[in-house]
Amino acid sequence: MSIKIFGHQNPDTDSITSAIVLAELESKLGNDATAYRLGEINPETAYALNYFNIDAPELLDSVIEEDTVMLVDHNEFQQSAPGIESATILAVIDHHRVANFETNVPLYFRAEPVGCTATVLYKIFSENNIEVSRECAGLMMSAIISDTLLLKSPTTTEQDEKTLYLLSEIADVNLEVYGLEMLKAGASTKDKTAEALINGDAKTFEMDNRSVRIAQVNVVDVDELFERKDELIEAINKEIDANEYDLFTLVVTNILESDSKVLALGEHHGVIEKAFDVSLEDNMALLEGVVSRKKQVVPNIEKAFASLYE
Amino acid sequence: MSIKIFGHQNPDTDSITSAIVLAELESKLGNDATAYRLGEINPETAYALNYFNIDAPELLDSVIEEDTVMLVDHNEFQQSAPGIESATILAVIDHHRVANFETNVPLYFRAEPVGCTATVLYKIFSENNIEVSRECAGLMMSAIISDTLLLKSPTTTEQDEKTLYLLSEIADVNLEVYGLEMLKAGASTKDKTAEALINGDAKTFEMDNRSVRIAQVNVVDVDELFERKDELIEAINKEIDANEYDLFTLVVTNILESDSKVLALGEHHGVIEKAFDVSLEDNMALLEGVVSRKKQVVPNIEKAFASLYE
Repeated sequence: MSIKIFGHQNPDTDSITSAIVLAELESKLGNDATAYRLGEINPETAYALNYFNIDAPELLDSVIEEDTVMLVDHNEFQQSAPGIESATILAVIDHHRVANFETNVPLYFRAEPVGCTATVLYKIFSENNIEVSRECAGLMMSAIISDTLLLKSPTTTEQDEKTLYLLSEIADVNLEVYGLEMLKAGASTKDKTAEALINGDAKTFEMDNRSVRIAQVNVVDVDELFERKDELIEAINKEIDANEYDLFTLVVTNILESDSKVLALGEHHGVIEKAFDVSLEDNMALLEGVVSRKKQVVPNIEKAFASLYE
Repeated sequence: MSIKIFGHQNPDTDSITSAIVLAELESKLGNDATAYRLGEINPETAYALNYFNIDAPELLDSVIEEDTVMLVDHNEFQQSAPGIESATILAVIDHHRVANFETNVPLYFRAEPVGCTATVLYKIFSENNIEVSRECAGLMMSAIISDTLLLKSPTTTEQDEKTLYLLSEIADVNLEVYGLEMLKAGASTKDKTAEALINGDAKTFEMDNRSVRIAQVNVVDVDELFERKDELIEAINKEIDANEYDLFTLVVTNILESDSKVLALGEHHGVIEKAFDVSLEDNMALLEGVVSRKKQVVPNIEKAFASLYE
């Protein structure tokens, strides 16, 4: 049976492209592997796949005990495919914190503190002396552009930058032109429902036994989105009720200005004031310089929760 | 403050030498790092350190929030330094299953399904184009000999084998002669107390919410050890009472014959019969072909517990 490779739920560009690229790498290493996705392709990813003429992976609902899998761009089970606890996990390639992950037997687990899974994947190509095709280079390049907002996010490392330039040469594209077009393709909110916006790139975290949902939307026009604030609040409150979230944080990141507006709802929304040293007005605040969920939003909220009852 | 690097509690040769070697590697990468140990040096490790004229690392009792650390040869917090939950973990280099491990922020986490941490470390030297000194080669070689019982353990991979031969050339020693001497140095049980024997290489595992202690002793003379069976049972029962273990398994591995005798005590000792399809007599059984705690003992006991109440 083919090894199933997939990224996290609500897949972003890194999760989709890294699954495709790792499946290609495994094939070249002689293993039978297939890329899957755990959710819909977003417009940014669609732009990248279309540009390099690559089909989107098939949708995967869940995995079973008999499945052997590889995870990319995530490791926490609650962000993975339902049933992941019972599957055989052969490998993890990631760039996030490690948590809520457990296996019975040893595996290949490679997480590095860089801006993008693709940066780690490129290293593995090099270590195995395997040539990177133009398509794979284009996909990895797209993932790095997406995760680092064209090298502007504080998650960006020297390795991401170096890898991105190398990949753009292999892919033979103008990095700035392609990158901005790809980001803009994902940044329009007009045609999206409130539900799609708050679930599109959302992850659940356990913090101090509380369930915290953090959604992020990258935009070029913040006002366009918040004209629909009432609609967003209604959709978020529905999610809170349905899933018993203690906190729902919508982070709206302006990719041109490199800051974010946050909308916080749920019983513990006040934690946001402590986390970012801001005052919420109508449950909202501007977070200056904040663009990274992983490096800025998650650790700050986590610290605020931890100190809450000290 | 210097980065603290250490292996698991009750350190074996891989845990001690990998800490020393990684500290050396980090120094060459320009980082200030110091190797530590979380327990006494065993006679096998002492033989290796003495042979290559390397001082044992200092003992570390616990870590605090202000510490930045790197873990080698383990990742599960209950096998690590007390206080590890609050320290900043920069890196993990390991070859075990991943479990009971969590960070708030991304880190370098490199676990591979090979027989020894040193095999992974050697790769990292190569990837960074850093030359391996004779001493480091000797220590890594010793770790691989120890963990794979001179390539006889089923945990041994092709990578371990290849790496071991390369290292023995750099270290410029006769692999077979050195290896057998080192293993024998660690295999004498006469001069050790029962407490030392059952705690020397012991690890605690959580299985299905039960606390399972698995100790392993490598010997060349099984009878010599079991002449002291009553003394061992008394010591184990004290450990069970003091630490509320649900199962204590002493695995006595004959490194010349490549099999093990097991002594199982505690409320759930019967699980061993199910785990290995054997009958216990006076709480003991011969486990033919079993030499690896990680690859054979732990997964089999884990499966037996999981199926216990199905």
